[in-house]
Amino acid sequence: MLNRAEDITKAEIGSDGLGDFPAAPRPRDSLSFLEALLASGLLISTGVEGVYGRSAVFEEVVARVNAMVGVWGAGKHVEMLRFPPAMNRKVLEASGFWQNCPEQIGTVFSFCGDDRDHQRLLKCLDNRDDWAEELKPSRLSMTPAACYPVYSIIAARGPLPEAGRIVDILSYCFRHEPSIDPARMQMFRQREFVRMGTADQVQDFRKQLMEHASGMMRALRLPATVEVANDPFFGRAGKIVADIQRRQELKYELLIPGINAEKPTACASFNYHLDRFGEVWKITTDAGQVAHTGCVGFGLERIALSLFKHHGLEAQGWPDDVRAALWVEEKRATAAPRSVVR
Amino acid sequence: MLNRAEDITKAEIGSDGLGDFPAAPRPRDSLSFLEALLASGLLISTGVEGVYGRSAVFEEVVARVNAMVGVWGAGKHVEMLRFPPAMNRKVLEASGFWQNCPEQIGTVFSFCGDDRDHQRLLKCLDNRDDWAEELKPSRLSMTPAACYPVYSIIAARGPLPEAGRIVDILSYCFRHEPSIDPARMQMFRQREFVRMGTADQVQDFRKQLMEHASGMMRALRLPATVEVANDPFFGRAGKIVADIQRRQELKYELLIPGINAEKPTACASFNYHLDRFGEVWKITTDAGQVAHTGCVGFGLERIALSLFKHHGLEAQGWPDDVRAALWVEEKRATAAPRSVVR
Repeated sequence: MLNRAEDITKAEIGSDGLGDFPAAPRPRDSLSFLEALLASGLLISTGVEGVYGRSAVFEEVVARVNAMVGVWGAGKHVEMLRFPPAMNRKVLEASGFWQNCPEQIGTVFSFCGDDRDHQRLLKCLDNRDDWAEELKPSRLSMTPAACYPVYSIIAARGPLPEAGRIVDILSYCFRHEPSIDPARMQMFRQREFVRMGTADQVQDFRKQLMEHASGMMRALRLPATVEVANDPFFGRAGKIVADIQRRQELKYELLIPGINAEKPTACASFNYHLDRFGEVWKITTDAGQVAHTGCVGFGLERIALSLFKHHGLEAQGWPDDVRAALWVEEKRATAAPRSVVR
Repeated sequence: MLNRAEDITKAEIGSDGLGDFPAAPRPRDSLSFLEALLASGLLISTGVEGVYGRSAVFEEVVARVNAMVGVWGAGKHVEMLRFPPAMNRKVLEASGFWQNCPEQIGTVFSFCGDDRDHQRLLKCLDNRDDWAEELKPSRLSMTPAACYPVYSIIAARGPLPEAGRIVDILSYCFRHEPSIDPARMQMFRQREFVRMGTADQVQDFRKQLMEHASGMMRALRLPATVEVANDPFFGRAGKIVADIQRRQELKYELLIPGINAEKPTACASFNYHLDRFGEVWKITTDAGQVAHTGCVGFGLERIALSLFKHHGLEAQGWPDDVRAALWVEEKRATAAPRSVVR
């Protein structure tokens, strides 16, 4: 096995023909920003495109951005729930994600054979044969968006209270889209608020968070716009679904230019699901109606990357007001009674 | 797809015959503690054994335990690195984990077909056919222990400095071992320190962290012992390897009784790899020798669960000195110059 380890150290962003997928084209600007991020040590190559280690500085900026997002929930009746980065595969199947974005899903496979199967598997690994046959799907998929585990759990509690519910979510997410655009990571964190209630409650929620996000962008001096958008639905039929989504204005995105020279990067999205998840998961309002739902997710790495792109790779050199906003908002967030135990 | 969602809500910890694995036997005490955790809302069922949502209170306790662990690094030359919960599959293969614990590994599979393949896949999902054939292994595995991504990255930097290196790691980890023992989660967090250097440096590091862990346990009033241990090596040959590991005292565990009535739970482990990872990854000391390595990992959920088991499900009611230790240590940790940016 030793020579294989050596290969990896040498190859860095390498390829071994094992489970590889066509490489994305390499726009020059993305590559050079990625190279700068890697050279500065803010991100660390793991040898897989879109999967990076993070330095202490990068993590601190992500934590401060996360705290700024969280300020919206202060003083509101928000329930914090946290889920691991993999979820019940059946829940994801029921959500419709397999219909819409099948190529982005990661399913966790495991080995469950005996001693003899194990010997065969090891031989396959050494010979680079088709070892995948020895593995079987487990009950887990990677979480593609932080809120997917939430709906069935809230539904199981019975009808919503009159005020509906707001849930505060954060997790690592996975999307299988290897890319050298540093904003298109395969593994990244989403901080989300999820709203369940009446149509009015969900639409008001979405409006409030658009204002909160825009305010954040002004404070961080990032040149953002909020625009109607659509999910990247798969295949030919997907184009029709995407058109409907745009016409009904079910999705808005907070776009920040800079990281990718060819198009601005979606750093947050504001989603109104109508009563679709209410129907799928049998979520009802206190009046017995099918609940409407919406979610607003912030891409923490993407906002952090935008800060490094627009204000420089040295966070110490960022404009005073940007630094003040990041750290003052952190103080406001922690000044709120954050401890739920003490 | 609608009726499938309903099934899940009803079934909770259910089974659909799709990629299931033999259920572990259900020791009575573990089940009732798990039931109490679920009833209190500290953990939330996702319908998959060993994969739980966490309440705000549970997360706060985990964060405080994590801060207490981190106090060891304060004032030392420790580099913080953070990695996502999935890693380069080839790096894991080279580490030897496939030889030792193949049944615990999660490999991420993805769909990479066209429109027609997609239609066939959806039909398979609806009919519960063998849809797994449409998926192929991606370049990622779930991270089984927080430190696995670190070694190749440090090796790539060239020889270690004279003092060696200490790396501070935290990530969600995955081990495929579905169980109703709440301490045996499939997804959990490990805070780790990794030491690379001479044999003396690594052994001294391990001794320091045993003392730190024992001190933490006294402060938290948890009845812990530190004992020689072995990894759960797979198969018949594994027993021999485990014996060697014990004889050489390469692994110690911090054991806390209580969660599982049948045996105490390993809540931290203190591992000395000799020069094995140094050989595999070509890590060398400044004197040009193959480096020795060691790692000490703390199971954050397991320590949190031990606190809930021994001091009660209501954290507000824990003994004053335990609460003081958790929150005072947090103050000590944050009093240190934690910001690396300001």
